[in-house]
Amino acid sequence: MAMKKIINNPDQVVDEMLDGLVFAYDSLVERIPGTIVVHRKVEKDGKVGLVSGGGSGHEPSHAGFVGKGMLSAAVAGQVFTSPTPDQVFEGIKASDEGEGVFLIIKNYTGDVMNFEMAQDLADLEDIKVETVVVDDDIAVEDSTYTAGKRGVAGTVLVHKILGAAAEEGKSLEEIKALADRLIPNIKTIGVALNPATNPEVGSPGFEIEDDEIEYGVGIHGEPGYRREKLKPSKELATELIEQLKKAFNWNKGDEYAVLVNGMGATPLMEQFIFMNDVKKLLVDQEGLNLSFRKIGDYMTSIDMEGLSLTLVRLEDEKWLDYLNMPVDTISW
Amino acid sequence: MAMKKIINNPDQVVDEMLDGLVFAYDSLVERIPGTIVVHRKVEKDGKVGLVSGGGSGHEPSHAGFVGKGMLSAAVAGQVFTSPTPDQVFEGIKASDEGEGVFLIIKNYTGDVMNFEMAQDLADLEDIKVETVVVDDDIAVEDSTYTAGKRGVAGTVLVHKILGAAAEEGKSLEEIKALADRLIPNIKTIGVALNPATNPEVGSPGFEIEDDEIEYGVGIHGEPGYRREKLKPSKELATELIEQLKKAFNWNKGDEYAVLVNGMGATPLMEQFIFMNDVKKLLVDQEGLNLSFRKIGDYMTSIDMEGLSLTLVRLEDEKWLDYLNMPVDTISW
Repeated sequence: MAMKKIINNPDQVVDEMLDGLVFAYDSLVERIPGTIVVHRKVEKDGKVGLVSGGGSGHEPSHAGFVGKGMLSAAVAGQVFTSPTPDQVFEGIKASDEGEGVFLIIKNYTGDVMNFEMAQDLADLEDIKVETVVVDDDIAVEDSTYTAGKRGVAGTVLVHKILGAAAEEGKSLEEIKALADRLIPNIKTIGVALNPATNPEVGSPGFEIEDDEIEYGVGIHGEPGYRREKLKPSKELATELIEQLKKAFNWNKGDEYAVLVNGMGATPLMEQFIFMNDVKKLLVDQEGLNLSFRKIGDYMTSIDMEGLSLTLVRLEDEKWLDYLNMPVDTISW
Repeated sequence: MAMKKIINNPDQVVDEMLDGLVFAYDSLVERIPGTIVVHRKVEKDGKVGLVSGGGSGHEPSHAGFVGKGMLSAAVAGQVFTSPTPDQVFEGIKASDEGEGVFLIIKNYTGDVMNFEMAQDLADLEDIKVETVVVDDDIAVEDSTYTAGKRGVAGTVLVHKILGAAAEEGKSLEEIKALADRLIPNIKTIGVALNPATNPEVGSPGFEIEDDEIEYGVGIHGEPGYRREKLKPSKELATELIEQLKKAFNWNKGDEYAVLVNGMGATPLMEQFIFMNDVKKLLVDQEGLNLSFRKIGDYMTSIDMEGLSLTLVRLEDEKWLDYLNMPVDTISW
């Protein structure tokens, strides 16, 4: 099948996409000239800067979460390809307000390496940098581009919670401590119906039958843990929730935040239906208290069909306040 | 091809979807028990109520725009099927605060008939109701479900502008006058790459070759005006803008609002790239002043691939204020 996309030159998708995004929302964000860094238009007031990014193809991540109360800057690599250290360093420099910069890194080998090299570059210029690596995907250990677990949609909730803490004036050390407490409490698992097509490649990332789904596929099309015939929404929810229950080992009455995340080509109709099944299983059946809920396309895989389910155990009531704090971004 | 969707019973999609939506955002909206009406949770303060709706399958329209500053209620019919007059009347009753209710109707024969019958029901109970019919799609005259032009993505901007006016305390008569001035200044045209599959039908709404696109397809898959081989984003933008230019007959320096609207399965990557081409053509080449810009999935056609381009001629500077006024909704 021919690649059917609204693009121009497949090699220029990131460049044109960033220009289109910045044009659409130029009151909120700007592109630092000559870079792939989207930076917020907020007056600096001596707070810790927050920087994330990674390969493109996960829109609205991460540029959609740049703005007051969330990220200071996002660095957008080529599709499914980590940005280089010098570009991450541009993001760090733009985001430093004298109190240091915190990097939120999804756990992929290339991202971890390049963001840490950027940290070294910042050290040379006396910009304090701390980091956290998000590895929320419980589907598989070690994967195509990853040692350990992959970083997926839970990363957006890390942006939100740490962004609120930074906005509140927390120090770099406090944000680091918060991040280290938060990460083990965020877990995600997904299901894919159809693969994404990377425009730089031109063909789907994997093959799947018309009546099959795959549990645990990664946001770059990495293999999941089981392939089955398509099932009703409620059964898909049951499977994903069983995995999350094993990982969290929750008790009735425990408090959680939930994110149902579309993978890019999943209509909201299906996401809402799935959320209704999640509610029946987690609230009515398991007795959890889902005190924060969010649904939509947050961490996509270009035009993949499928969705993921993220839970955050709210072991500190402050985290709920942070999730609810207003922000000024394109996509939160 | 088998229908590959995350649903349970195809006949229950609207019911389950509404429950999922209301669960996810129960601080903003509620479902009126026993109805298909989503109503905002805002204390009544004697303002004009605003009600819209129509067939489902256009999510986040219309329930995603229910909330302070936009709609009072949205009525969600079966997929691509107008809600019945009694359900629209339930929406009207819930939204009346003593100052009357204004109905925003997309121009489809069934919607116009059923919303006007609901107006008659309201008259019997002395609720003042005024209406406007949105017919912003310039692609074709008369269509599968329409006499005249179809109502499409521009409807969301009508929600926004009239919603701000209602929030500001304008009277029913003032809102009617504003709506009548606004409608001729809103025009939309779209392009489809692939059809939607209505879950209640189970097969795609039309057939199209792997390398073909169709200009002017409606949001229920109604026929457009020309089919061609797939072209680069810039050429698609050129075609749509030529049609809009003929319809508006603009001059350099004229002020417009622009909405790039994804049809449900179009990744943000493509929408941003398209917006970049719109900017080059409308701003750099035509010299228009695009003082309001918005991009994303606002009026979808389930899982259709494609997008539409809406322009609003801002002949009154107040309209820009109304577009920029903050709201408290799920999806604006």
